[in-house]
Amino acid sequence: MHFKLRPATKEDCKEISRMILELAVYEKMPDQAKISHEELERDGFCQNPFFECLVAEVPEENKSKDGFTVVGYALYFYTYSTWKGPTVFLEDLYVMPEFRGNGFGKGLLCKVAKVGKEKQCVRLQLSVLDWNTPSRDFYAAQGAQDLTDSEGWHFIRFDGQKLDNLANEAPKD
Amino acid sequence: MHFKLRPATKEDCKEISRMILELAVYEKMPDQAKISHEELERDGFCQNPFFECLVAEVPEENKSKDGFTVVGYALYFYTYSTWKGPTVFLEDLYVMPEFRGNGFGKGLLCKVAKVGKEKQCVRLQLSVLDWNTPSRDFYAAQGAQDLTDSEGWHFIRFDGQKLDNLANEAPKD
Repeated sequence: MHFKLRPATKEDCKEISRMILELAVYEKMPDQAKISHEELERDGFCQNPFFECLVAEVPEENKSKDGFTVVGYALYFYTYSTWKGPTVFLEDLYVMPEFRGNGFGKGLLCKVAKVGKEKQCVRLQLSVLDWNTPSRDFYAAQGAQDLTDSEGWHFIRFDGQKLDNLANEAPKD
Repeated sequence: MHFKLRPATKEDCKEISRMILELAVYEKMPDQAKISHEELERDGFCQNPFFECLVAEVPEENKSKDGFTVVGYALYFYTYSTWKGPTVFLEDLYVMPEFRGNGFGKGLLCKVAKVGKEKQCVRLQLSVLDWNTPSRDFYAAQGAQDLTDSEGWHFIRFDGQKLDNLANEAPKD
C-alpha cells in the first residue's frame, strides 16, 4: 500500500491525540492518557518544542474504515547519554491495526533513526511493556538490545504529591 | 557540612567529566564512559542544549582529599509523556563518596524536582541498575515507584551498526 511519512504539523494534533488514546487502549492503560490536542499543539509547536513527530499518511482512496488518512505516528525527542552523547528517544510508535503489516511501523522507526543520525545521535532508545510480545519481537528482529534483561536497568518515577514533596524540600538558593 | 548547589557553567565541564567517569566506575562499566569535557561543553552550552546540569560545591576549606571543591552533580533534560505532558529526566545523580551522608544527593534531587516543576513537568524519571540497592532504596524512600517492577516497562536500545542499518533503510522522502 502506498503511504507517505512526513513531519507532523500543528494541524495534525487532533489526529495524533486520537491515536495516542488508541495506543493507550492497546497498552491496557486507557485511563492514563490525559493529553489534549491543545496541549500537543502548545508543547510540540512552540519555540523550544518538547518533542518532534512524524505521521504516516495514506491517499484518500485508502482511508480507514472510519475515514482517517493519518494512520500512524512516531513521536520522539532528544535525550543525552553522559557516556556516549546525544540520543534519540522514541516515546511512541503506533500504526492503526487495519494498516499493520504494510511496513508503516518499520518505515517510521527507520525514519526516526535517520533523523537522529542527522543530529549526531549515537543511540535510539525506547521502552516497551514486558507482555507486549509483538512489539518486543519487532524491535529485537531489528537488532535492538533489551537493557532491562541484559544489564538490569529499571525505570523509576516520581509524580503527583511525591514530586511536589521533593520540589518543596529543595534547598534555597 | 556547608555546600552550595548551582547551575553548572561551561568551566565546570572538566569536573563533570571527571565525576561521570567516577560514576561509571561505581556502576561497574568504566569502559562505557567515552564523553570528553569538550563534548559536554559543546552539547550542554550551545543554542539548544541537550542537557542542563547542577553542581554541588563546597568551600575551599572543605575540599576533597584530592583538592576538588565541585563534589557532586545532577545532569537532567526534558522529555515528554504523550499521556501526561512535560517530564524531567534525571540522567545522572552523583556525589563523591567522601561527601556522602551530608544531604548533597537529596538536595540535588529536590532541586531538579523544583526546576522541573517550574517548567510544568508532572514527572521526574530516571533509571537505576537492579543491583544498585543503595540508590534504589534512596529513591524508594523519597516515594519513587519502580515502573519496571510494577508495570513491566523494559528499556530497549539500538546503537552502532544496528542503528546505522535502520537509518539506511529509511523510506526516501
